[in-house]
Amino acid sequence: PRIEPKPAAMLRRLLLRQARRRHCSSSFSSALPLSSPTFAVFGANTGVGKTLVSAGLAASLLRSHAASPSAVLYLKPLQTGFPADSDAGFLYRRVPALVRPSHAAHLVASIDTLSPAPSVETPSSSREEAAFSYDGEGKAVRKLLACRTLYAWREAVSPHLAAEREGMTVEDAHVRSLLAACLSEGENLGKGEGDVWKLVETAGGVASPGPSGTLQCDLYRHFRLPTILVGDGRLGGISGTLSAYETLLLRGYDVSAVILEDCGLSNDKFLLSYLRNRVPVLVLPPIPEDPSDDLTDWFSESSSVFGLLEDALRSFHLKRIQRLNSMQRKSKDLLWWPFTQHNLVPVDCVTVIDSRCGESFSAYKVKDNKMMMIPQFDACASWWTQGPDSKLQIELARDMGYAAARYGHVMFPENAHEPALRCAELLLGGIGKDWASRVYYSDNGSTAIEIALKMAFRKFSLDRGILLDSDKSITNERNIQLKVLALKGSYHGDTLGAMEAQAPSAYTSFLQQPWYSGRGLFLDPPTVFIRNGTCALSLPQSIQNCHLSPGDKCFPSLADVFCKSRDSSAAADLYSTYISQQLSEYSVSSNIEHIAALIIEPVIQGAGGMHMIDPLFQRVLVHECRDRKIPVIFDEVFTGFWRLGVESASELLGCLPDVACYAKLMTGGIVPLAATVTTEAVFEAFKSDSKLWDGTLVNQLSSLPNVKRVVSLGTLCAIELQAEGSDAGYASLYARSLIQ
Amino acid sequence: PRIEPKPAAMLRRLLLRQARRRHCSSSFSSALPLSSPTFAVFGANTGVGKTLVSAGLAASLLRSHAASPSAVLYLKPLQTGFPADSDAGFLYRRVPALVRPSHAAHLVASIDTLSPAPSVETPSSSREEAAFSYDGEGKAVRKLLACRTLYAWREAVSPHLAAEREGMTVEDAHVRSLLAACLSEGENLGKGEGDVWKLVETAGGVASPGPSGTLQCDLYRHFRLPTILVGDGRLGGISGTLSAYETLLLRGYDVSAVILEDCGLSNDKFLLSYLRNRVPVLVLPPIPEDPSDDLTDWFSESSSVFGLLEDALRSFHLKRIQRLNSMQRKSKDLLWWPFTQHNLVPVDCVTVIDSRCGESFSAYKVKDNKMMMIPQFDACASWWTQGPDSKLQIELARDMGYAAARYGHVMFPENAHEPALRCAELLLGGIGKDWASRVYYSDNGSTAIEIALKMAFRKFSLDRGILLDSDKSITNERNIQLKVLALKGSYHGDTLGAMEAQAPSAYTSFLQQPWYSGRGLFLDPPTVFIRNGTCALSLPQSIQNCHLSPGDKCFPSLADVFCKSRDSSAAADLYSTYISQQLSEYSVSSNIEHIAALIIEPVIQGAGGMHMIDPLFQRVLVHECRDRKIPVIFDEVFTGFWRLGVESASELLGCLPDVACYAKLMTGGIVPLAATVTTEAVFEAFKSDSKLWDGTLVNQLSSLPNVKRVVSLGTLCAIELQAEGSDAGYASLYARSLIQ
Repeated sequence: PRIEPKPAAMLRRLLLRQARRRHCSSSFSSALPLSSPTFAVFGANTGVGKTLVSAGLAASLLRSHAASPSAVLYLKPLQTGFPADSDAGFLYRRVPALVRPSHAAHLVASIDTLSPAPSVETPSSSREEAAFSYDGEGKAVRKLLACRTLYAWREAVSPHLAAEREGMTVEDAHVRSLLAACLSEGENLGKGEGDVWKLVETAGGVASPGPSGTLQCDLYRHFRLPTILVGDGRLGGISGTLSAYETLLLRGYDVSAVILEDCGLSNDKFLLSYLRNRVPVLVLPPIPEDPSDDLTDWFSESSSVFGLLEDALRSFHLKRIQRLNSMQRKSKDLLWWPFTQHNLVPVDCVTVIDSRCGESFSAYKVKDNKMMMIPQFDACASWWTQGPDSKLQIELARDMGYAAARYGHVMFPENAHEPALRCAELLLGGIGKDWASRVYYSDNGSTAIEIALKMAFRKFSLDRGILLDSDKSITNERNIQLKVLALKGSYHGDTLGAMEAQAPSAYTSFLQQPWYSGRGLFLDPPTVFIRNGTCALSLPQSIQNCHLSPGDKCFPSLADVFCKSRDSSAAADLYSTYISQQLSEYSVSSNIEHIAALIIEPVIQGAGGMHMIDPLFQRVLVHECRDRKIPVIFDEVFTGFWRLGVESASELLGCLPDVACYAKLMTGGIVPLAATVTTEAVFEAFKSDSKLWDGTLVNQLSSLPNVKRVVSLGTLCAIELQAEGSDAGYASLYARSLIQ
Repeated sequence: PRIEPKPAAMLRRLLLRQARRRHCSSSFSSALPLSSPTFAVFGANTGVGKTLVSAGLAASLLRSHAASPSAVLYLKPLQTGFPADSDAGFLYRRVPALVRPSHAAHLVASIDTLSPAPSVETPSSSREEAAFSYDGEGKAVRKLLACRTLYAWREAVSPHLAAEREGMTVEDAHVRSLLAACLSEGENLGKGEGDVWKLVETAGGVASPGPSGTLQCDLYRHFRLPTILVGDGRLGGISGTLSAYETLLLRGYDVSAVILEDCGLSNDKFLLSYLRNRVPVLVLPPIPEDPSDDLTDWFSESSSVFGLLEDALRSFHLKRIQRLNSMQRKSKDLLWWPFTQHNLVPVDCVTVIDSRCGESFSAYKVKDNKMMMIPQFDACASWWTQGPDSKLQIELARDMGYAAARYGHVMFPENAHEPALRCAELLLGGIGKDWASRVYYSDNGSTAIEIALKMAFRKFSLDRGILLDSDKSITNERNIQLKVLALKGSYHGDTLGAMEAQAPSAYTSFLQQPWYSGRGLFLDPPTVFIRNGTCALSLPQSIQNCHLSPGDKCFPSLADVFCKSRDSSAAADLYSTYISQQLSEYSVSSNIEHIAALIIEPVIQGAGGMHMIDPLFQRVLVHECRDRKIPVIFDEVFTGFWRLGVESASELLGCLPDVACYAKLMTGGIVPLAATVTTEAVFEAFKSDSKLWDGTLVNQLSSLPNVKRVVSLGTLCAIELQAEGSDAGYASLYARSLIQ
């Protein structure tokens, strides 16, 4: 039975329904079917023969004797110069004549235009259909070719210009919705008899603007269709083809094949060699320049190349599906996820993330035996990064590529480079404004915390005159116990040092880390909660509350909770007394046990259960510590960078730390990076005129011939050789034992 | 006094001298002067007017009344179609007529060709010179225009084809050396009277191949000259220009200006808007298509645009120099380097790293008042990554950009995605072959070690039946002391857990980390050293050595040291006895103190001083531990991935670990990433049918209306909402306290 494409009016209704369902205008929210091979046709430039490739490929697919594909859906989302130029029209008119199978076949070809601009002169009917029969052996195979233009403008210019000049601007979300609807609806074309192949032909080059001005590679990125790149065979075409290829990679596309015309310059040979092991490269015979040539001979000459293209795409599609289908099982077998009890994750509950665009993951699912890519709202927020939107993602990707290409891996100590310096300037002018002057980089939140603790301990030891005498024995040192002051329920990471600064909990049990002991004085903090629109304090048992009036414990709004006037309230006195009492035990036994750092997550305890701590309590805590020269650490890994509506949570608290830790959002979550920022006073505590290093070795090395300078790089030693006049770099000292 | 350019013969000698000095054929080793503004002219395509831009800019520069620039050096490194096509010739013939200053001036223009292919028909003299005088007010200003072609081929095709067909292939290193020599020598052109501007015009598009087939953007990358991108004003030109721009960014180039012809399509307006705040975009009047037009009017119309281009480039150059000059001071003021005593780093010793290419940093230096970019050999090896070469750097950058664009930040637990899975497959098929089956990812070596320790401790506890009874109190748990067995001098990182597994040293002192206690049994290892070509054992005092023959202690080659036949030697017995004796103390008091993991750096202790440990000792150690069910951890952060000539150092040791840690080289050092790989038996020790989590809360949440599933994600809890038919993603549970 022949299946009719739905008429355009129905499609438009579908589109409207979809648009209503969308929560956010910029997100694309419907499933993309994967059973049918679907490819985007991008061009290295305009005029490189995208439509000829689409036509040749469609003819090759329809020519095959096999039932699959039973249909080819050709979509041209954006057409300018219409109707004189109509790529859908070209396929509709030309493909049936190119099909000519060796077997008996019926072909029904159709063409329609969904949304022409008002300026376009169209015939009364927007849909046309024609049937073809081919003689041959065997029972006739039924085939369908549906050619569809989505949006069309009259002028033969870039869609963004045509849209502006002809008054039909289209939002990106609409283009995507209509394309998604066409791709979904296209599934039905092949129902009963075999698969559908779908081709989406873009307009112009890969980065040509769409109607809104969004580059087409960005406009269609939500679908991340595997791509056929039609290369450029002309002079300069190698460059254009490779640049276009890189633009697609920089959007996260997979290029399944490169195909280009032979213009006598052997561009294909070069590209074949350059892209070897990455992308198949195919070459088409020279395209006749004579406009009267109807290209019949050319298509006939090219048919074997289109056959190879079909094979390459078929193989790409199959491998992709096989890989996607194997990923749940393989990941269950090979990966060890963090924070996961693997027994509780059945293999079919593993989410296969194919890609990400904006706030959504694109996840591979099989439902009712149908394979699909489904946009899933990104829950990364629970992992402490808020996803950058799709535009920012592209900028970040470009910047990542640039930085990787410019620097690769460079050393940091005693060196300066632009990204480290620029980032430091931004941090100190932002979250560090008015207090911080130094940035120490590391890889993640845990590490940033370990660094902060070391900084605070050194500062405290210096201020309290501990260990100024360098002759003190190690035994004496170890009698001194430094502890942190921290709040119960806080979380600072899972390396041992970060764990030790947390109160005992299920996450610090013997089974998690037998070395954990909890090196802190852990206070029960008062928390704030909202019930029936009112904010209320919840005081722990350890804090007496008989003196607090209802006005001290209930607040009409969160703003009142943060109000600085609470500093003179009874609650402030209560907190101050409680904290002083807790700390007094340490000032008595001060030669052995010290509280050497305060560490808190300002305002919100994240991983510990999303508890809001009374900001007044944290403010009083900071002041009490500062009075006792106890350095204050803010762990802003969770709260930093506008997470709470302010750049730093210290703005909400109304007080500043001595050391603060940042991570995650700093890179938009794209690479691990953390910063421990601090005051000059803390930095000064580490300054000295010598370094803890084996001075004997340095002296020995310095006296060797040709050695200009010996530098101790951390726990290694590097020597700079004296070379005649030039800058011979550092030669690191390997295998010291081997050259004794 | 007029300064003559050196004749070509001298230059060739210079080049040869340089080539002799090069240690490695792929590295470029001379200094690039920075005092003179130097720009590369790249094209979005061929035929977009690069030479017109070079000519217009040169004329604009020479027209100015100021002494600076006193000279313009125009270099065309690769010219095909020569001598009919000669871009240097175009400038030599046309620029003098375009200069016409309003003041009196003398101009000497010269042209030469350094290395024409044998097939090129050249006039007998390769150098020509012409002098021009301009009337006007004031004392005449002297100016110089030197136009130089480096390599020239006869056929008008891409250099890689011309080179092949005409039999003059040129290695990349030679092109770079000759170009470097010309750029250095060009400094002298302006001596005495003012600066020189230098323009290097590339051939074809940004990614057009050079003579060896290396893309030009890669060929010239060592210089990383700021770039003028000549865009494409034609249909499709927006795409071509932006793709070319991205290709340059993906090589780490800075684009200082985009300039393109107005072809009536407003490409410039779109590009101006798209590149806003990043690159200035300038538009030139339409170029007359009539070949008989000598372009005099066009140049005259364009002169104000070239004036703007000159201003933009001048400003770019000045800002760049200012920034480079400020970086030493700023980094001293803002950065806190790791492993550095800041007092020992004078401000003028800070190395300003502008970029990296292959094994060399490009460092900014001021010597004898001259600003320069100097290639410096990369000492990153001492920071445990070996630099990828320049080709790999480009591939890594492209892959980084692709991954960032495809995924951005995605969640990992309970999810699978291609890079994590592919990397796991590679690791398990490589360093994990024959033993490992699981990969746990983290950010850095320290973290990988902390994870390895937790794995080993859990495995040990399970095997020894410790804490199987879940009712055991925390007090009892803490009475059990788990220790590591490790070797003195080992280094595993600077987070507390990693430090605790190291023997006490200067790096673990109270001043470094007051919490360090050293939770291990630390053995003195026997080491191997080479003296006079012979390998010898050095035994520590703690190991009796009276029974060892000289044959047990001296070896003709390293291969003998690694020979498995040593397993039956007296040394093996000695080691076994020593280790058993050390461990025996722990089996006696087995209910309190346990040796719960062995952790070693196989073969070489890196940071601890590059000591080679006797592999026999480590092998015996591994066997003794395995006999006692003590899990074995190899820290391969330093030794992994062919660092010692084998993929994993366990190949050299001849025994396998239960857990191994990898980092650094895994990403070529470009982003932090680490892996802890392990056996299925260790993984199984973590399997359970429940998760350590507040079950009550999960149950409470599960019973709420519309909640489909509750998942505990680490220390957070996420709920999946039941939405009609669609996949509503996870909504993480925020502000639990606020919704009580």
